[in-house]
Amino acid sequence: MSEINTVVDAHLVVDAYLAVWNRTDATSRREMVEDLWAEDGGYTDPLVTATGWEKIDQVIAHAQAQFTGMRFVRGAVFDAHHNIARFTWELVPTAGAEPLVVGFDVVALNADGRIQSVFGFLDKVPA
Amino acid sequence: MSEINTVVDAHLVVDAYLAVWNRTDATSRREMVEDLWAEDGGYTDPLVTATGWEKIDQVIAHAQAQFTGMRFVRGAVFDAHHNIARFTWELVPTAGAEPLVVGFDVVALNADGRIQSVFGFLDKVPA
Repeated sequence: MSEINTVVDAHLVVDAYLAVWNRTDATSRREMVEDLWAEDGGYTDPLVTATGWEKIDQVIAHAQAQFTGMRFVRGAVFDAHHNIARFTWELVPTAGAEPLVVGFDVVALNADGRIQSVFGFLDKVPA
Repeated sequence: MSEINTVVDAHLVVDAYLAVWNRTDATSRREMVEDLWAEDGGYTDPLVTATGWEKIDQVIAHAQAQFTGMRFVRGAVFDAHHNIARFTWELVPTAGAEPLVVGFDVVALNADGRIQSVFGFLDKVPA
């Protein structure tokens, strides 16, 4: 496993990760998934687990259909070392609004700097 | 990846994991490491990254030497789904004392129910 060279690099990975969740154009979303994840990369959250670009892209498309028009934005927590980072994210109806969902993810990068695994948890879910 | 069958199973993994950190007898500590981790399993925290039983055991032995007489105990956070769990732990000088260190770990199990990876972060470090 390569190390994240700087905390700035890890911030860029997290920004790119959230950008994928906000990219609703199917073609460019899939391209972003392939740029960001290893081909055999994984994604697991409390509701779903997926391996590989196709299934990960389907998970993201499904979430976008469920929360149409909402945005995934950075949350308060960010911490990175070696090849891993932990961070929170928020799903917000509009900028600055109270988040509908707050998530907590750990991402692990492979030697190429691509996401090998996302381990997702939920800190706040809709009532 | 197999799923954790019940939340009880995940609690048992976390209990066994903390028990290793508290086991100072070198022979039985190593046996516990081999029982708990996959042979190619990994451990990463902000200070160190290790792969395989030998190196993981060395990391634990080093921490024990650094914090002689202290105990690793469960913290307030615990959450598990699929094959992963997140939890906090505390390093305490004596039972019930203010923790010297508070850590936050995510563990991912392999198909045999052994730890494939530990992704460790620190929520509180000594001043």
